[in-house]
Amino acid sequence: MNRSPLAQPFPAMPQIAGVVPRVARAGYKNWDRCDLTFFEFVEGTSVAGVFTRNICCSAEVEFGRGQVQLGQARALVVNAGNSNAFTGIRGREAVEQIMGQVASQLDCLPSDVFVSSTGVIGVPLPLDKARHGLAQAFASSACTWQEAAEAIGTTDTFPKGVTASAMLATTRVEIAAIIKGSGMIAPDMATMLGYIFTDAAVSSQFLQHCLDAANKATFSCITVDSDTSTSDTVLAFATGRAGNETLVDFDSPGADAFAAAIHDVCRQLAHLVVRDGEGAHKFIEVAVTGAQDDDSARRIGLAIANSPLVKTAIAGEDANWGRVVMAVGKAGEPADRDRLSIGFGGTWAARNGLPLADYDEAPVAAHLRGREIRIDADLGIGGGRATVWTCDLTHDYIAINADYRT
Amino acid sequence: MNRSPLAQPFPAMPQIAGVVPRVARAGYKNWDRCDLTFFEFVEGTSVAGVFTRNICCSAEVEFGRGQVQLGQARALVVNAGNSNAFTGIRGREAVEQIMGQVASQLDCLPSDVFVSSTGVIGVPLPLDKARHGLAQAFASSACTWQEAAEAIGTTDTFPKGVTASAMLATTRVEIAAIIKGSGMIAPDMATMLGYIFTDAAVSSQFLQHCLDAANKATFSCITVDSDTSTSDTVLAFATGRAGNETLVDFDSPGADAFAAAIHDVCRQLAHLVVRDGEGAHKFIEVAVTGAQDDDSARRIGLAIANSPLVKTAIAGEDANWGRVVMAVGKAGEPADRDRLSIGFGGTWAARNGLPLADYDEAPVAAHLRGREIRIDADLGIGGGRATVWTCDLTHDYIAINADYRT
Repeated sequence: MNRSPLAQPFPAMPQIAGVVPRVARAGYKNWDRCDLTFFEFVEGTSVAGVFTRNICCSAEVEFGRGQVQLGQARALVVNAGNSNAFTGIRGREAVEQIMGQVASQLDCLPSDVFVSSTGVIGVPLPLDKARHGLAQAFASSACTWQEAAEAIGTTDTFPKGVTASAMLATTRVEIAAIIKGSGMIAPDMATMLGYIFTDAAVSSQFLQHCLDAANKATFSCITVDSDTSTSDTVLAFATGRAGNETLVDFDSPGADAFAAAIHDVCRQLAHLVVRDGEGAHKFIEVAVTGAQDDDSARRIGLAIANSPLVKTAIAGEDANWGRVVMAVGKAGEPADRDRLSIGFGGTWAARNGLPLADYDEAPVAAHLRGREIRIDADLGIGGGRATVWTCDLTHDYIAINADYRT
Repeated sequence: MNRSPLAQPFPAMPQIAGVVPRVARAGYKNWDRCDLTFFEFVEGTSVAGVFTRNICCSAEVEFGRGQVQLGQARALVVNAGNSNAFTGIRGREAVEQIMGQVASQLDCLPSDVFVSSTGVIGVPLPLDKARHGLAQAFASSACTWQEAAEAIGTTDTFPKGVTASAMLATTRVEIAAIIKGSGMIAPDMATMLGYIFTDAAVSSQFLQHCLDAANKATFSCITVDSDTSTSDTVLAFATGRAGNETLVDFDSPGADAFAAAIHDVCRQLAHLVVRDGEGAHKFIEVAVTGAQDDDSARRIGLAIANSPLVKTAIAGEDANWGRVVMAVGKAGEPADRDRLSIGFGGTWAARNGLPLADYDEAPVAAHLRGREIRIDADLGIGGGRATVWTCDLTHDYIAINADYRT
């Protein structure tokens, strides 16, 4: 698969004290690459997580949901090439074996070991490959962030990493994060798995609070094809090695700065997933204003962003605002046709339910020829607003997904 | 656009006493074809209708909703090439002009005149073209059903008609129906407009009851691309000229037979729309069983039928049952991963949450190479069942919709 035309270069990323990433070749598929990633954390690392709402979730997600309640982590293992989803009791056994093997190695509790898997569905993770891959990882030296980002990827066309920092009183804390996903969304090889690492000392409760809040406005506001993975997971780990004197917690000094940095990282990660959306040629930002409330605005934004007719219109560089009107109307949210305004790239095409008499399509046409597209929908009935992100729907999407398994 | 590979020949259709169809050239677009269809009904014709739930609906739909409450009809005018949607007060004026012109001609109430329009959005229907087209229609002789079916079409690749009959005591009543739509769904040229005509004498209340019941299991169970048109309309007209002695009504003799015939007609019409789905190469039936209840089964079926990943897998003739699992899981309905079974063409690929050990993909692969595809999903938790219909998602869909307006 060719590198996405929307790809961004892998950034310079800081070391995170207390985190050691390593990669190994488990050989989950017949390929010549690292496909097992092992992150070791110092004792005292706190953890938070958000998971897919898909009812048919994987064993990894079921375990993970329980583990984040305990709030502590010593390791994370990511398997690429096999999602281990829809594999019944054998799927659970595979996760338990990995947790046990790592717990023995690090002399920690199995519940301190987080596991994620991404890849083909319905095939139990091969136990022997996982065991040998892990043993290989234990014996390896640390890898770079980019090597880790590449090893967790599957159909991704470029490795994805972002970084941020925050000042807590006089202490600077660092955040490094990687993500995989090419589609939010696909249950096969395109599951979204994101990992955030920080050296800050943070309570697991506050870390969870930051992640939940950021998730709502970032990962929950992106869509590639409206499908929801059985394995989507974002985990945040905080090692506490930065030396900030006061634990970051609700109402502690620097709590707002830390939360803002986590939000920034999540937004960047979410955008990278859209930029690697299957077949994407254009990055689309949908800004909804004037809705009844923010939640309503978000649902309207997702209705627009999920509409195949809107996404194909953008692929065709066609300022077809009628399709945006249709998507607003089908969202099932409060709206008034005669107050609705639609614009592209800052130019209104229709205002208050009517096409603009002096609408000049030229600047809109020029905007739509670009890579970064902006759609505005103003409902005109309230103060609710939300921004969601998606990509266009192209022939490449069909080619990728109609020919994937065969 | 090439004729759909799933097209069916236009059937022999009976005359319906009390209905005269005529076509004319209003010239709503720069094309050489009839684009205005005028149906005249005898006095005493009862009417029922179902309409899009899209909040941004057209003026035609707003008027129609009120008119069916009155229960009587003398005429129907269908404009093709311009949907008159999102055109504000000028859109309402156009509908009122048509209603007034026909009412003068037939010496009836404007509210007895139903109007539908389909085509590009955001451009008010040209009043002069509508006026001249109608005058031309008044002066024309009756046309055939096929000519009417062709005149109401826009992006349709074949004209669509179906017929049925029912015995009411010793009287045979006839039903003839036409529909347009190529996509359920698209707001541009692919609005679904369906019209059912019968010579039976039926109370408008019972006719509405039959149409509502049939709609729930037919038009509401098809999807091409999950988008909802601003103009979708299905109307049923009953002229009463068959001579059935007892008005068909709730609990009247023959009521069940008549309701069954309406249901049959609606199912056939709905299937024809899917068979002309934009870019469709395969007709897909999704049968959901074992759900908590029928409504839950229908929502799960639509989640499967709307999933781009399922639809592209079928396009690729790929028995990717993992994508069906994903779609079940994302539907938000009660489900238990470990009781779920998925099959294609009558062969189970996974049962009770596990891939079948002895799964033979050969008969499934052969089934998927055909035109008529069946997907089974058994939830294993209750007695709820539903069947929905869709088509595959192909390169032709992208070509049609990325290049439509430009």
